[in-house]
Amino acid sequence: MGHIVVEVMPKQEILDPQGKAVVGALHRLGHRDVTDVRQGKRFTLTVDGPVTEAHLEAARRAAETTLSNPIIEDVVGVYELTDQTVAEHAR
Amino acid sequence: MGHIVVEVMPKQEILDPQGKAVVGALHRLGHRDVTDVRQGKRFTLTVDGPVTEAHLEAARRAAETTLSNPIIEDVVGVYELTDQTVAEHAR
Repeated sequence: MGHIVVEVMPKQEILDPQGKAVVGALHRLGHRDVTDVRQGKRFTLTVDGPVTEAHLEAARRAAETTLSNPIIEDVVGVYELTDQTVAEHAR
Repeated sequence: MGHIVVEVMPKQEILDPQGKAVVGALHRLGHRDVTDVRQGKRFTLTVDGPVTEAHLEAARRAAETTLSNPIIEDVVGVYELTDQTVAEHAR
């Protein structure tokens, strides 16, 4: 069983009201160092067996066509979730 | 100017109706290899100047208290967004 991560973020030029709300909340809570927040989506896709290049290719296609709205969002990442990535991202 | 990524996912034991809807859509579009999808959130926090350990510590606190709901969500990643991470995640 393998896992693929797909990361989707609002395009730079698109207003992000959720992100603005979050940055406002962080400021009220004293996190004044944070000057901006953007909120996007993170999907994990599970596939049977190990992740192959064909799986990643299909995930890239799905990311562009189904998991994101290309008018307002960018796909910023499509990669296999390995023990190493999990460890690198975790606290 | 530095960037910190915060990744939040629904807990394993929590139903994820958005993810279920996405896996259904992928199946209808022929992506039969995908057996499960979970949908979470990805935040990028912008800070002035380079990212310090204090920034990361504050981001971890904010992630647990403000950016996620600990009842139903796990913070799965808090890390600095570097040129290297961008390249590794991109297609």
